[in-house]
Amino acid sequence: MGKLLILGTVAFDAIETPFGKTDKILGGAATFIGLAAAQFKAKSAIVSIVGDDFPQEYLDLLKNKGIDISGIEIVKNGKTFFWSGKYRNDLNSRDTLATELNVLADFKPVVPPEFKDADVLMLGNLHPSVQLSAIEQMQTEPKLIVLDTMNFWMNNTLSELMQVISKTDVITINDEEARQLSNEFSLVKAAQKIHEMGPKYVVIKKGENGALLFHNGEVFFAPALPLEEVFDPTGAGDTFAGGFTGYLAETENVSFNNLRNAVIQGANLASFCVEKFGTERMQDLSKEEVDRRLNQFKQLTQFDIELR
Amino acid sequence: MGKLLILGTVAFDAIETPFGKTDKILGGAATFIGLAAAQFKAKSAIVSIVGDDFPQEYLDLLKNKGIDISGIEIVKNGKTFFWSGKYRNDLNSRDTLATELNVLADFKPVVPPEFKDADVLMLGNLHPSVQLSAIEQMQTEPKLIVLDTMNFWMNNTLSELMQVISKTDVITINDEEARQLSNEFSLVKAAQKIHEMGPKYVVIKKGENGALLFHNGEVFFAPALPLEEVFDPTGAGDTFAGGFTGYLAETENVSFNNLRNAVIQGANLASFCVEKFGTERMQDLSKEEVDRRLNQFKQLTQFDIELR
Repeated sequence: MGKLLILGTVAFDAIETPFGKTDKILGGAATFIGLAAAQFKAKSAIVSIVGDDFPQEYLDLLKNKGIDISGIEIVKNGKTFFWSGKYRNDLNSRDTLATELNVLADFKPVVPPEFKDADVLMLGNLHPSVQLSAIEQMQTEPKLIVLDTMNFWMNNTLSELMQVISKTDVITINDEEARQLSNEFSLVKAAQKIHEMGPKYVVIKKGENGALLFHNGEVFFAPALPLEEVFDPTGAGDTFAGGFTGYLAETENVSFNNLRNAVIQGANLASFCVEKFGTERMQDLSKEEVDRRLNQFKQLTQFDIELR
Repeated sequence: MGKLLILGTVAFDAIETPFGKTDKILGGAATFIGLAAAQFKAKSAIVSIVGDDFPQEYLDLLKNKGIDISGIEIVKNGKTFFWSGKYRNDLNSRDTLATELNVLADFKPVVPPEFKDADVLMLGNLHPSVQLSAIEQMQTEPKLIVLDTMNFWMNNTLSELMQVISKTDVITINDEEARQLSNEFSLVKAAQKIHEMGPKYVVIKKGENGALLFHNGEVFFAPALPLEEVFDPTGAGDTFAGGFTGYLAETENVSFNNLRNAVIQGANLASFCVEKFGTERMQDLSKEEVDRRLNQFKQLTQFDIELR
């Protein structure tokens, strides 16, 4: 059983989909990552920041999942980061309605002492300089540093982002971001260029079309489970990252073969996340449900052609 | 070794992609289906029609692949069906520049006597009444009737199309067509509705995002192999159908498990088709290349998680 350190936002989200809308509910990258990782026997901690408007109930929820929250700073008289978005009819694109940084604007992450030797460091989507600070606070080199980022940082803080990328083992981005970062349309070529920036492993997320894991000229593909209904895609990418890193921290094995398994674990958990609003589905997800769906993933992709 | 009967167009194509353009070259659904099926040890025949402007060289090419072309009618003073299209930059959409039906306008298919007991009947994309005529000429019921069609027939000849659909075991359509035919956005729900129209198996093709095989509440997924370059998508869907049916005719096994293998065989061959213009890549494709890439497909999707 290894240790997983998660850096990322803990936040309020307000979401509108074709199927309904929410008031301010629990959100944030680190929240989704932590809830997904909690499905595995790893020791996890979140480093983040909230205001004192953030309900104790939400903090207790994370704590009760076994997540160490001593690294979540609570700012007195501060307001918690808030994001609001509205999905279009196909659920594949969304418009951001509001982004209020609030306490996130001055976030100086502090890694708890007993997680400075974490096996896996998961850097959720944040300002690259915040991500860099977490890397620098580690006392022993993690077995695996995993980076999530987005086009916003490519547009606005590219040189800092490139510095973080050069220090990571795995980068997870979506197909459009991979194309932007590499200036290549073919995802195979994009992954090659991103390899040269530092990461040994490149994960390209394609939403309902699955995720690709590139390594050393090889590629592995995890489909998204075809679902009758996708209700709310919010947090699916973070849930994927949480399943991916939680599994790797539990197994303490960062071989390519085990990263393949980790991609499936991530895709499996993400398939639950989208079934309800926000974190709702992840809050009460049982190991039995997870395992049953892992079996469906096997059924979905495994075949038995005798090669001639 | 079983028999495969292929109904479909044999035609001229003129193609423009971001990478170049062709004059009139060999094209047509039955051509792509036949060339793909020729990779398998099945006895195949094509039923189609061309004008006497169609080069003997093209007919010899099919014959030399072992395909029975006695069912290809050659119309004296007739002109061969011609299609011309231009792909947009992402290669995922195309505009039709010309469709000249010519001899196809009066096509009355005639199934050769020794293929009236074919194990697999592959109905390439054509007017539903032509497809229906081929079904009606069979003397013994095929183990499997596979139907390819497109939105054009849904828009213009829906009641005839529904009649054909009711008589087929497998339908292969793309995601947009599945949504149109079923009036459901979710592909899982779309497949359920299409099952009720007749086909026990529903294959939904998603281009570079692979293909789904639905059966009896279960689903199997074949990814498209991530390629460095996609040069020309023309014929990829037909090549998929040819690999699918050629493999099934060779193995004479139409169980769900073997249909899973067939979907992989189809996806594998389609990954070659798109590497060059038209049928060029399929003309000289060796068994060794096919097998090597089948191995890549295994690498691409197989994983080994120990279920708890």
